[in-house]
Amino acid sequence: MNIPERTPNPIEMLQSSLTDEMERVNGLIRTRMHSDSAPRIPQVTAHLVEAGGKRIRPLLTLAAAKMCGYTGPYHIHLAAAVEFIHTATLLHDDVVDESSKRRGRPTANLLWDNKSSVLVGDYLFARSFKLMVETGSIEVLDILSNAAAVIAEGEVLQMTAASNLATTPETYLRVIRGKTAALFSAASEAGAVIAGAPPEHVRALECFGDALGISFQLTDDLLDYGGKTAALGKNVGDDFREGKMSLPVILAVASSDRFERDFWDRVIAKGRQEDGDLEHAQSIMLKHGSLDATRVEALAYATRAREALSPLPPSPIRRHLEDLTGFVVARIV
Amino acid sequence: MNIPERTPNPIEMLQSSLTDEMERVNGLIRTRMHSDSAPRIPQVTAHLVEAGGKRIRPLLTLAAAKMCGYTGPYHIHLAAAVEFIHTATLLHDDVVDESSKRRGRPTANLLWDNKSSVLVGDYLFARSFKLMVETGSIEVLDILSNAAAVIAEGEVLQMTAASNLATTPETYLRVIRGKTAALFSAASEAGAVIAGAPPEHVRALECFGDALGISFQLTDDLLDYGGKTAALGKNVGDDFREGKMSLPVILAVASSDRFERDFWDRVIAKGRQEDGDLEHAQSIMLKHGSLDATRVEALAYATRAREALSPLPPSPIRRHLEDLTGFVVARIV
Repeated sequence: MNIPERTPNPIEMLQSSLTDEMERVNGLIRTRMHSDSAPRIPQVTAHLVEAGGKRIRPLLTLAAAKMCGYTGPYHIHLAAAVEFIHTATLLHDDVVDESSKRRGRPTANLLWDNKSSVLVGDYLFARSFKLMVETGSIEVLDILSNAAAVIAEGEVLQMTAASNLATTPETYLRVIRGKTAALFSAASEAGAVIAGAPPEHVRALECFGDALGISFQLTDDLLDYGGKTAALGKNVGDDFREGKMSLPVILAVASSDRFERDFWDRVIAKGRQEDGDLEHAQSIMLKHGSLDATRVEALAYATRAREALSPLPPSPIRRHLEDLTGFVVARIV
Repeated sequence: MNIPERTPNPIEMLQSSLTDEMERVNGLIRTRMHSDSAPRIPQVTAHLVEAGGKRIRPLLTLAAAKMCGYTGPYHIHLAAAVEFIHTATLLHDDVVDESSKRRGRPTANLLWDNKSSVLVGDYLFARSFKLMVETGSIEVLDILSNAAAVIAEGEVLQMTAASNLATTPETYLRVIRGKTAALFSAASEAGAVIAGAPPEHVRALECFGDALGISFQLTDDLLDYGGKTAALGKNVGDDFREGKMSLPVILAVASSDRFERDFWDRVIAKGRQEDGDLEHAQSIMLKHGSLDATRVEALAYATRAREALSPLPPSPIRRHLEDLTGFVVARIV
């Protein structure tokens, strides 16, 4: 009997290539989330940080620095800073979205309260800047403070675009660039910059992170409508219930006839949803090919991410990053 | 008939000594609160920034830089950054406190929603770091990122100390150092640092800002129980209703007998308040001299702030800052 070999998971490959560095990152995270005066801070932070996220963003920073031949200590600080920014945005997102679950556990705003989520997020954000300051690199601070602004802008834009049927694919792209790609991109770029890499390598890693982030988010948004088979996604329908204007909806609305438009107007613009509406939305999407079109986009960005790496010299880490572009879209191919 | 001369207001004196600089700060604030992709951001920001705050914090930065002989352009960036941090904390505070009024107008979380307040606060925070990055000074970034962490810590500590009758004067001092004095202090210190001032002048301005901020907050907390005459404060009783453990309460609890302790336990720890409770709290405070003791503390910090300036060479700006220490406590003497 043939036991099919398990496809190697490129995140695990990266983790094992960067075991020492990740241990130092985790140690730094634990040290810096501490607060003498306010024990609530490490409690809330630990709830998220230790929930077993995959640490993709700090891995990108470490991988970029290593590929660019860095031998100093500050990629550890940057990787921890990137994870703190990510954790801070998760805490604030859960308040904004009024979520009750994150990574399969109750959210901090539910376990403690919204106040704690807002203030501990602010603390982590400040601590992340402190970590960057320690690197002494103004260039790195520039990259990450820009990313932080783009993240917030993307979140505001997503909030104001919600339920707005006139949202364009361009606005959607700006939203996901902000909420996801900006930090992927800054995490990769900062690793190259701290290593003093040449501009074409810095630019390559920036583009890699950007395209990877977009591909990642497109995949997520597609899975929210069940992907190809309407069965793969775990939280199918969340975006639909929140009236999020993600690409599958935007494309379906654009191709809809008058009757279908009335449907979108009721369920998204007016938010009046009934049993069976999600299934009807999916059938309109299938009819107009908007799920397929979203998948094509996700795959195109994955390819773009892989190709962005070509200026970098071949190495095992580069291979893992290339494999990561395929892994991110593996759930929808 | 003698018309009494109006006491010169040192904030107005500072404003008129720094008119050009403040105009440039306001211009920079307007430019940087703009967002191409998310118009909600400047709307929310303008609501607060243009509500006519006194801009004390950016004035401190400008005054410190000028006193230290700065001739470059970056005190403008720092002053704008400081005001952005302040505005971001106000937006987040209003969410945390569930406030409905700020500077006499409805709060942003009421006019828009909590989401907007959280995300626009995040945006302004990121923009403030971008402004600091433009100064090219790692030292300034260090000072202000530390301040941002201390602010968040103070807010978390205040939240967890609320309704806790065991709160000590030391904890209270840590809270107000965080929520108020940290930014006063960092604003003053950063102005000196960008000017390349000698360490003793940097330290002098840091201590000045710290003591001024503490004095300012003690005064505010005293006025919340009506100050000396139980008639001066505008929002008398707000802290009481929220169960805040400010110094007047902490000192009164410490001196209370068993019956008075039962009272504090009901109104603060259990939060069960009835008509007449505020007046009873005030009478206990008067009996134990805790309002007087708070006033003595506020005046002592005002004196400390004034004396901190002594290493700096005499100048009109220094005089205005000295007068400011008296102005801050003028409402309670």
